[in-house]
Amino acid sequence: MTHRRPSLAVVGATGAIGGVMLQILSQHADVWGEVRLIASPRAAGRKLVVRGEETEVLALGEDVFDDVDVALFLVPDEVSAQWVPVAASKGVVVIDDSAAFRLDDDVPLVVPEINPHAVRLRPRGIVASPNCTTLSLIVAVGALHAEFGLRELIVSSYQAVSGVGRDGVAALREQLSLVAGTELGTRPGDVRRALGDAESGPFAAPVALNVVPWAGDDAGGGWSTEELAIRAECRKVLGLPELKVTATCVYVPVVATHSMSVHARFENEVTVERAHEILATAPGVVLFDDPAAGDFPTPSDVVGTDPTWVGRVRRSMDDPYAVEMFICGDNLRKGAALNVAEIAESVAGEFSRV
Amino acid sequence: MTHRRPSLAVVGATGAIGGVMLQILSQHADVWGEVRLIASPRAAGRKLVVRGEETEVLALGEDVFDDVDVALFLVPDEVSAQWVPVAASKGVVVIDDSAAFRLDDDVPLVVPEINPHAVRLRPRGIVASPNCTTLSLIVAVGALHAEFGLRELIVSSYQAVSGVGRDGVAALREQLSLVAGTELGTRPGDVRRALGDAESGPFAAPVALNVVPWAGDDAGGGWSTEELAIRAECRKVLGLPELKVTATCVYVPVVATHSMSVHARFENEVTVERAHEILATAPGVVLFDDPAAGDFPTPSDVVGTDPTWVGRVRRSMDDPYAVEMFICGDNLRKGAALNVAEIAESVAGEFSRV
Ligand SMILES: NC(=O)c1ccc[n+]([C@@H]2O[C@H](COP(=O)([O-])OP(=O)(O)OC[C@H]3O[C@@H](n4cnc5c(N)ncnc54)[C@H](OP(=O)(O)O)[C@@H]3O)[C@@H](O)[C@H]2O)c1
Ligand SMILES: NC(=O)c1ccc[n+]([C@@H]2O[C@H](COP(=O)([O-])OP(=O)(O)OC[C@H]3O[C@@H](n4cnc5c(N)ncnc54)[C@H](OP(=O)(O)O)[C@@H]3O)[C@@H](O)[C@H]2O)c1
Repeated sequence: MTHRRPSLAVVGATGAIGGVMLQILSQHADVWGEVRLIASPRAAGRKLVVRGEETEVLALGEDVFDDVDVALFLVPDEVSAQWVPVAASKGVVVIDDSAAFRLDDDVPLVVPEINPHAVRLRPRGIVASPNCTTLSLIVAVGALHAEFGLRELIVSSYQAVSGVGRDGVAALREQLSLVAGTELGTRPGDVRRALGDAESGPFAAPVALNVVPWAGDDAGGGWSTEELAIRAECRKVLGLPELKVTATCVYVPVVATHSMSVHARFENEVTVERAHEILATAPGVVLFDDPAAGDFPTPSDVVGTDPTWVGRVRRSMDDPYAVEMFICGDNLRKGAALNVAEIAESVAGEFSRV
Repeated sequence: MTHRRPSLAVVGATGAIGGVMLQILSQHADVWGEVRLIASPRAAGRKLVVRGEETEVLALGEDVFDDVDVALFLVPDEVSAQWVPVAASKGVVVIDDSAAFRLDDDVPLVVPEINPHAVRLRPRGIVASPNCTTLSLIVAVGALHAEFGLRELIVSSYQAVSGVGRDGVAALREQLSLVAGTELGTRPGDVRRALGDAESGPFAAPVALNVVPWAGDDAGGGWSTEELAIRAECRKVLGLPELKVTATCVYVPVVATHSMSVHARFENEVTVERAHEILATAPGVVLFDDPAAGDFPTPSDVVGTDPTWVGRVRRSMDDPYAVEMFICGDNLRKGAALNVAEIAESVAGEFSRV
């Protein structure tokens, strides 16, 4: 038995998720040999710090995968679609954070708290990590599913602007600078005037002092791609192809951490007491639920933390099989970089056992 | 038949709703005789403009209701609880915007688009106007109910800070001034540091760059009073005492206009086409629903307008009897002052007919 430390490539090291990934690599127990940082030719030559060392960013190309064991792809869908197969064909195990392969039947979609073993069955050499909206809720919902048997989810999201990457944060920052100093009264037109010159950026409408009920692209039937992604990904990760899932995705002016109002209906009767017991001990979950004492999760409490936080657990007054919850998860950590890192660390374990 | 113009008292003229009421009184067809403006002794002597005239604010007391026909109460619950019966006992018809009498069996709860005739049956001389969250959704939902037969509502709100009055707007303004100019990065703690000194004001947590899933007081079972108010008020206005209603109320950093993500289930099968036809012609509703073209309502589009705006209409993929919608309504207009004004104008009609 050798203890070779596998080498790692981080593709998209300069992005919003990439930045958090570099922090995680510096903080977690170090299981990696060489760590290579990769981005587009635009960023090549920049120096970023990982594990305390300045490391030069390389431009994405076939050669950068030479001698790499594991590659993390933290890049837009179309870049993953093109380059993941290139890396995989060279024998690299790829963990992809984009949507490009999530629904491919030959690519497992993995959340280590829920389906850790799925990572081993990867006929294409590719493992996918879910969308940040799916990830923000599925750890908590999965823990309840194991006890009560999930039948239906009706979800409304309060999504952070970093969910679309660094451009989303830049757009909110610019819009906020326009409203700072204005009167912000409650007269008609006040907000519209303040935001008059704001660029919407990657959003379908300005998001400062506003909420934007549209995420992703048109998926037909009035649905957005993000809404249908939650449906398809929850079904795949939980192994429930018939699960009823309805999502409404809405951006809010929050920098990082997605929140979800969740109505979950189960096969078996649920009590708040038993739901509390399960959530209080579930791995990766923090129960924070005493509203009379001010205890419920908000993005500003949760940002920068690893777990999924759950509060506002209530039994439906109309249906003893349903509970309501308010769930927050940092979309950049568990919603993306952390889940990818956890998958990668489990893959790294395979190398030390060869 | 005389055409006497009834005299009007506006109690709470200096508040968030009061300010919008003065605009509405200046803009709508003028059906009133004398208009008296009333607030607490703190504000007495201030001059406010209504119908183009500077008018002095009077301190609330029994005498201010002498010779008044109709009084609008736009004050906190406890002030209404004390003073509405005083005015009513003097023969004044009271339209109360507080929660104090909304669920009293002898007080009609009126939304003119839905139950206009209820205004005539007022054994106590009091008519109540619903909560702003109820009002933001009920006009649209009521129109669909008339055709399909409503059975259940599951609602998640995105509530504006002016829903708690002028103090809510002041708190958001102060919090935003703290974050303006900060880096607002996506590193853990950035937002918490920026908001470090922020006063939560009337909210249970800071609301700038955050969302706060708690509105009102503890109502038991994990529910907030605002959530149970939506349930009880929708049932009363629609005359459906068995209606299933589940609400999750969340404040967002928006100045004015409440938004709602609504899952509505009906007795009869619904199609998006027929729902669109109904909403496009329903009084008090604007259908704004072509997301591929960027058409969906957001608070910054809707603020300052009278109607309820509806978009994102989708048929549930799991249930042909249910639709999802995203609904926006200005909480200061239809959500409060406008609905009160509409009720008052219908009462004024009674005077011109005596
Ligand atoms: N943000 C989230 O909450 C979240 C959550 C889950 C999954 N994801 C997924 O994670 C991926 C990255 O998201 P992000 O939020 O980090 O985006 P981002 O902030 O926009 O960063 C994009 C990254 O991709 C790189 N890139 C872009 N085009 C490239 C090319 N042609 N060749 C090589 N590198 C290229 C960029 O490098 P340059 O600096 O060279 O441009 C940058 O490092 C996306 O697939 C996203 O859907 C994001
Ligand atoms: N904001 C909304 O979206 C909304 C929607 C529906 C219903 N409502 C209800 O409408 C009412 C007013 O809300 P708001 O948002 O306008 O509140 P606000 O901005 O806080 O204004 C409160 C008003 O009440 C007056 N007031 C307070 N204490 C008084 C007293 N002891 N005697 C006489 N007047 C007194 C204040 O006068 P001073 O200037 O003298 O203090 C001020 O005019 C509340 O019952 C609220 O629940 C509000």
